[in-house]
Amino acid sequence: MKMSSMLGSRFKETPADCQLDSHKLMVRGGYIKQMTTGIYSLYMPTKRITKKIENIIREEMDKIDGQEVMFPVVMPASLWQESGRYDSIGSEMARFKDRSGQPVVLGMTHEEAAVHLARGAAQSYTNYPFMIYQIQTKFRDEPRARGGLIRVREFTMKDAYSFHTSQEDLEQYYEKCYTAYENIFRRAGIPEVVAVKSDSGMMGGSVSHEFMLLTDCGEDTIVLCDCGYRSNMEAADCIVEAPETEEAPLTKVLTPETKTIEAVCEYLHAPANASCKAVVYQKNLTDEYVIAFIRGDLEVNETKLRNFLGEEIHPAEITQESGIVAGFIGPVGLPEGVTYVIDKSVAALNSSVCGANEENYHYTGYNVKRDTPDAQIADFAKTYEGAICPVCGKPHIRISRGIEVGNIFQLGTKYTKSMEMTYIGQDGKPHYPIMGCYGIGVGRLAASVCEVKHDDYGPIWPMSIAPWQVHICAIKATDPEVRAVADELYQKLQDAGVEVIYDDRKVSAGNMFSDADLLGVPVRVIVSPKTVKRGAVEVSKRDKSLREDVAPENAVEYVEKLVQTMLDEFK
Amino acid sequence: MKMSSMLGSRFKETPADCQLDSHKLMVRGGYIKQMTTGIYSLYMPTKRITKKIENIIREEMDKIDGQEVMFPVVMPASLWQESGRYDSIGSEMARFKDRSGQPVVLGMTHEEAAVHLARGAAQSYTNYPFMIYQIQTKFRDEPRARGGLIRVREFTMKDAYSFHTSQEDLEQYYEKCYTAYENIFRRAGIPEVVAVKSDSGMMGGSVSHEFMLLTDCGEDTIVLCDCGYRSNMEAADCIVEAPETEEAPLTKVLTPETKTIEAVCEYLHAPANASCKAVVYQKNLTDEYVIAFIRGDLEVNETKLRNFLGEEIHPAEITQESGIVAGFIGPVGLPEGVTYVIDKSVAALNSSVCGANEENYHYTGYNVKRDTPDAQIADFAKTYEGAICPVCGKPHIRISRGIEVGNIFQLGTKYTKSMEMTYIGQDGKPHYPIMGCYGIGVGRLAASVCEVKHDDYGPIWPMSIAPWQVHICAIKATDPEVRAVADELYQKLQDAGVEVIYDDRKVSAGNMFSDADLLGVPVRVIVSPKTVKRGAVEVSKRDKSLREDVAPENAVEYVEKLVQTMLDEFK
Repeated sequence: MKMSSMLGSRFKETPADCQLDSHKLMVRGGYIKQMTTGIYSLYMPTKRITKKIENIIREEMDKIDGQEVMFPVVMPASLWQESGRYDSIGSEMARFKDRSGQPVVLGMTHEEAAVHLARGAAQSYTNYPFMIYQIQTKFRDEPRARGGLIRVREFTMKDAYSFHTSQEDLEQYYEKCYTAYENIFRRAGIPEVVAVKSDSGMMGGSVSHEFMLLTDCGEDTIVLCDCGYRSNMEAADCIVEAPETEEAPLTKVLTPETKTIEAVCEYLHAPANASCKAVVYQKNLTDEYVIAFIRGDLEVNETKLRNFLGEEIHPAEITQESGIVAGFIGPVGLPEGVTYVIDKSVAALNSSVCGANEENYHYTGYNVKRDTPDAQIADFAKTYEGAICPVCGKPHIRISRGIEVGNIFQLGTKYTKSMEMTYIGQDGKPHYPIMGCYGIGVGRLAASVCEVKHDDYGPIWPMSIAPWQVHICAIKATDPEVRAVADELYQKLQDAGVEVIYDDRKVSAGNMFSDADLLGVPVRVIVSPKTVKRGAVEVSKRDKSLREDVAPENAVEYVEKLVQTMLDEFK
Repeated sequence: MKMSSMLGSRFKETPADCQLDSHKLMVRGGYIKQMTTGIYSLYMPTKRITKKIENIIREEMDKIDGQEVMFPVVMPASLWQESGRYDSIGSEMARFKDRSGQPVVLGMTHEEAAVHLARGAAQSYTNYPFMIYQIQTKFRDEPRARGGLIRVREFTMKDAYSFHTSQEDLEQYYEKCYTAYENIFRRAGIPEVVAVKSDSGMMGGSVSHEFMLLTDCGEDTIVLCDCGYRSNMEAADCIVEAPETEEAPLTKVLTPETKTIEAVCEYLHAPANASCKAVVYQKNLTDEYVIAFIRGDLEVNETKLRNFLGEEIHPAEITQESGIVAGFIGPVGLPEGVTYVIDKSVAALNSSVCGANEENYHYTGYNVKRDTPDAQIADFAKTYEGAICPVCGKPHIRISRGIEVGNIFQLGTKYTKSMEMTYIGQDGKPHYPIMGCYGIGVGRLAASVCEVKHDDYGPIWPMSIAPWQVHICAIKATDPEVRAVADELYQKLQDAGVEVIYDDRKVSAGNMFSDADLLGVPVRVIVSPKTVKRGAVEVSKRDKSLREDVAPENAVEYVEKLVQTMLDEFK
């Protein structure tokens, strides 16, 4: 490709509204153009990068016996009604009516489509296991689209669906897929990606993992321990040591104007980790109150609470009629009809301070088992830096941030049951297949690589996914000698199968180098009147680890080998 | 790929509601599954075929300096309002509102997106010409979805857009693209495709061609001549010889109960080709009447008429108030405010029979120039078998049917003007770039190949796009010798880079062969107890042009060479 005819313009100025480095650089480098919030067109360099990523994904999926298929973008609502998700998914799913008035949706994930395709085509246990995948455009009407290709509304995704006749078989395949994912991220140049336990959210199912690229700009919170424990904050257990407290009788005490847990602890000289605070929610469907009691020094992890309750909740508006005495809420003597649940951090205390459900009064000596023997106890505390690791038991929990670049789920029979997909087992009876599903966002992966592989001047693309392998800069290409050397090199490298971008424009050397930095091609060859004079071309690496003069007659072989060596690192 | 683990089932019965052979075979062969009208999922074999077609297209587009980019599927309505097509395109364009209430559309073509991407990035004449293309999912809410992948609502399309600084440059590029298209169809195995002049329809612009695969089941009508002239019926000139008629005075004659042109010609003993019949339309926007007068033996080509009028029309409902006397309509003495237009077939007559705009009366001797000197004359007759070829002048016009597998358009400045895309020319002034656009439907191309390359038992895929290159049938694979030979062949062919599907199932030979016929893989290798006994494997071609015993130890080399030779045919 000659740069003189490549569409796209590059510039120095930091564009407005770009928080992430990858976003800034991909706008400045002529990689992407926003059409509207979270919807982008991709220029040639990005398309080349994403094609390479797609091919890496394909190879790894094919290695684990994946069958590439294609599902539609536009799907009938009826299919999503079968699984129940037409109603359970909110406005992030685009819906409209087709010309005949039939309601349709835009695919944001394809479990329903996968079951539709497989149902009827895999009716015997001998057809199992199998995995089908596609690489296709998806639309998710994301309210927080931001950060260039990191969080968009329309995106290309690889989504895979496996079908099994036993949980053991699914688990074996899940392991294979886990390894395939590690290969994909390594081959795409970001071996730093780690798998973390995650919450399954709207996908249903039990076990799931997210593959996270740890970076300060990520919007996910990751919980880590030196022992290897890793979890998404949403799914992380919170283990805390209970302070030693002596059992004491439940005693109502006057605590005037102590509406916060800090205020009451200070007033009573009680430590926060021996107090019980209330966080009030309402159920989305019924507006019924749900009070979560948790140790005063901890926070509620709403995802865990939601999963325990099995329904959606939101922070409450406490009305007078509810009978709830805001600021003095406690588990003993709550108004009729108010549900409550107690975190195990409170249950572990022999004695704690809690509200007395009466203006200006608290209890001391509250003991969960003794005073509220029927209470529901659960784990819904948010873990924190320095908390106890649920695996090694040491207080070494660290909190980090990350970008989710992939996820894998064990789905169970949620979709096959609801959509009535069965096979005849060896026992001659019908069974529901057990499913797994496995996603990777292609554009987000490209941007994530840029996010962690760049310098101030532009991306430093790994050779495996770089838009081109070699960037020739012909400085003063009007000089016939420069032109001749550069032209020949361009031709011969291409003949040798090397992917070359050739800057043949009449622009200054500075301009040429800053554009080359923005394109981030891993190997650069400079041909200029100076290099010609000293009988050489200058070969360098974008990451600055190499800069060498090579005789023009050896340049093709030298560069070809260099490219191959760099490619081999990602095998 | 082992067939035992491939998803998809094949069957013998002709499925209901399939008119086209390709549709029948692709359903029977486990290639496609309909999700709803005109929306399909693709099983693995189809995905492999379409990927190969996409790669052929990519190579040919890259050869003519195409830059692969990616446009969104979901686009803001505002972009389509800029070009004016948000209003001019009907319900075939899907529209909805996103979660923030913004109107959006699903892309059915991407001229607007191409201008959006290029605008601002190609501001100097030095950036021109360039061509950008994508291979992407499109949605067109087609009222007549039918025929499997031939006419669907959702489809994968390659669409390309070129930008030029002069009409000459566009024309040169258009020629290149024309040749690239010929290469694509040849390489995909259907060199029979012909380019025909076509009507530009909603795309705008002047010159355009459709690439047509001639087949009786096509839904387009093609006009051909031995001299090489080819046109879509919609765009075909109609040239007819005028019969010799002597000029005569305009004379009103009583013609009782002769409401059709046939009846009046019979009554007056006048030949149909010396009569003038009326076909009445109304304009879509105003309901105003437009009467088309055409020779009695010819039909109106509504596309040509519409293009001449420059607006949409529909067959009229003639009311009493209109003053139009149905059955006796003629150009002389029409009611006030009725527009009419005369086909050149009538203008060529010295004397003809026409209605007198009075119940039971016609005129004889009507002469266009003499009696209606201000009449608008145009060419809107539909050509027919045996009409005169507009190129060679011989009455050799033939009518054929075809499937449109691609199209190319010279768009002019329709989109760059309406969307204000300019560049600074060599003269220092702003100019609008001139555009071309070039489309190919990938799935339709796959189905079209099947439509013309099949026998009663299944598709006969050309080697260049076949889902696999070699199909191994291991008959009685329970026989350890058969298994050993087949397994080794499968492994070694794959190691040699050959794409193999291996039928290792415990099914009858008949079942295996009929499935192999349905998968249509060009080379088949049969390993059975019989072939093992005679020390051979049987190599055959799907098109039955080869059937040969080969010693197992020579089989890999033999098959590899055979595949290569067959591939070379499509270079």
